[in-house]
Amino acid sequence: MSEALSKGQAPDVGGHTIPTLEDVLAAAERMADEVHRTPVLSCASLDEIVGMRLFFKCENLQRVGAFKFRGATNAVRMLSDDDAAKGVVTHSSGNHAQALALAARRRGVPAWVVMPTNAPGIKRRAVEGYGATVVDCEPTLAAREAGAEQVVAETGATFIHPYDDPRIIAGQGTAALELLDDVLGLDAVIAPVGGGGLMSGTCIAVHGLNPSVRLYGAEPENADDARQSLEAGRLIPVGAANTIADGLRTSLSELTFEILKTHLDGLPTVTEDEIVNAMRHIWERMKIVVEPSAAVPLAACARLHPELAGKRVGIILSGGNVDLDHLPWTTS
Amino acid sequence: MSEALSKGQAPDVGGHTIPTLEDVLAAAERMADEVHRTPVLSCASLDEIVGMRLFFKCENLQRVGAFKFRGATNAVRMLSDDDAAKGVVTHSSGNHAQALALAARRRGVPAWVVMPTNAPGIKRRAVEGYGATVVDCEPTLAAREAGAEQVVAETGATFIHPYDDPRIIAGQGTAALELLDDVLGLDAVIAPVGGGGLMSGTCIAVHGLNPSVRLYGAEPENADDARQSLEAGRLIPVGAANTIADGLRTSLSELTFEILKTHLDGLPTVTEDEIVNAMRHIWERMKIVVEPSAAVPLAACARLHPELAGKRVGIILSGGNVDLDHLPWTTS
Repeated sequence: MSEALSKGQAPDVGGHTIPTLEDVLAAAERMADEVHRTPVLSCASLDEIVGMRLFFKCENLQRVGAFKFRGATNAVRMLSDDDAAKGVVTHSSGNHAQALALAARRRGVPAWVVMPTNAPGIKRRAVEGYGATVVDCEPTLAAREAGAEQVVAETGATFIHPYDDPRIIAGQGTAALELLDDVLGLDAVIAPVGGGGLMSGTCIAVHGLNPSVRLYGAEPENADDARQSLEAGRLIPVGAANTIADGLRTSLSELTFEILKTHLDGLPTVTEDEIVNAMRHIWERMKIVVEPSAAVPLAACARLHPELAGKRVGIILSGGNVDLDHLPWTTS
Repeated sequence: MSEALSKGQAPDVGGHTIPTLEDVLAAAERMADEVHRTPVLSCASLDEIVGMRLFFKCENLQRVGAFKFRGATNAVRMLSDDDAAKGVVTHSSGNHAQALALAARRRGVPAWVVMPTNAPGIKRRAVEGYGATVVDCEPTLAAREAGAEQVVAETGATFIHPYDDPRIIAGQGTAALELLDDVLGLDAVIAPVGGGGLMSGTCIAVHGLNPSVRLYGAEPENADDARQSLEAGRLIPVGAANTIADGLRTSLSELTFEILKTHLDGLPTVTEDEIVNAMRHIWERMKIVVEPSAAVPLAACARLHPELAGKRVGIILSGGNVDLDHLPWTTS
């Protein structure tokens, strides 16, 4: 477990340096005035159903409705004044895009978001609402990457990847810092795994503070690249991921794979029905709006019951951005 | 403004003693280990829309999903052991019924809820889920009152009215205590008005702590008995109230009318469309589930803008119990 970190070494993975607890602590200090300290909620009736004592870190209540604002704010704040002035760019069209747009606006610098022409209007409007410029591209990853490169070439803007970036990972880890600060004696923490940025930051923060806490990632069966990668011992990108948990369709990077490999105690996967069911339970019992991706860890609790029955378990609720006109239980 | 209270007098209204700040403080201490200290959330984008700095006291995140658990817990805890052992009864079928059922279960005593045979199955199951016994009656107020009287006669249980009761009012006031403790320098507080229990407790707590804070009730136009009563200077019960805000269909009692008359600075009313619109804004922007009644104060902010523009305004979000299969924007 993270020998390199405890010795203060900084191994290079995919061109990046693995962030340390110190990086997460620095991120927390850097953005204390920008980021909501989100509440940790508990729910007796869910505890009863699941058979654990659950503590939900409500990043759905974070600005822009997702933990992504933490990483984006940390990355934007770490830029030099000269670099910041030229702006930032990304090719995500999800929560990271909104987060980066708001983080840039808060620093008073421009942001560009490269988005496929077939992206939902709601996503486009959200990003524009935060003051970013949307750059159209064809709906392929290659076109998105090319679009982002072109913005960089034309403007000198800094490209900010949604997860393959130590600044982003350190920022995302601040949610777990707050969770451990608010809840004493946690036995385990579960977070969803898409590209692995949130899970990586969570691993570094939690094990940096307390190496005995067990760490679990949770994935949709239909987007189980992290499980496949960990089992194979090498990075196996997901194909076309057909899951309602749209935040988890992306694949690990070399950097996040390395961190997860070092820290995770398990990586349960869940079905689509289990995700929708868990999501509805959270809405009904906890009275909060979460997106499908955020419900994946609760769904995974059934799989983890043999290991975690009766334990104190932290869950990171990653976000709450859903289309209220198309809820999974009204359309199914 | 509340001269009687400041002189320590206790006038009788409708057979009741008006509760004081001391009663609210005692309630808070009495139930500190039972009641969630709910978070106060803010939302920059709603502030921008409304033109005020809003602080939302999230009683939708309270146990049973509504502030009602506060009053019910206070009332049940104040019973002598002998009285408590005989149980409690009410004829509300809304959030108060669930709250009383859970409060009774927490003290280990029985609860009966008299409910019309045409009440939705979801309400019946919720109350039974908390361990109360449902007693059927015809769907008239007379039948409900008779049903409750019969339970009292047969069992010796104590009848706990949903709002016409100083113990209930003192309990509801504890939400505002916490709000003022968490948010400094509030200029005003707005709460919804149905029977007036929450608003009364809020008045007593807020003006007890700081008489300069302005207090506003908010009502649906379609259930504006409180406005009518305040304008007429006498209690005018509402007829059949046709509003989506089902928690606000009830009318003031003499007790709550007296308290509101003494304390309120205004009582704006809102349309059904405004309620649904405000509810959706809260779900979308704040990522929390609120019931229509809870959205009424936010809807009223437009009416209060001339008085409160730029001010720091506390809003009590009263509850989050909705049927997720029938949301107002999917059926309209």
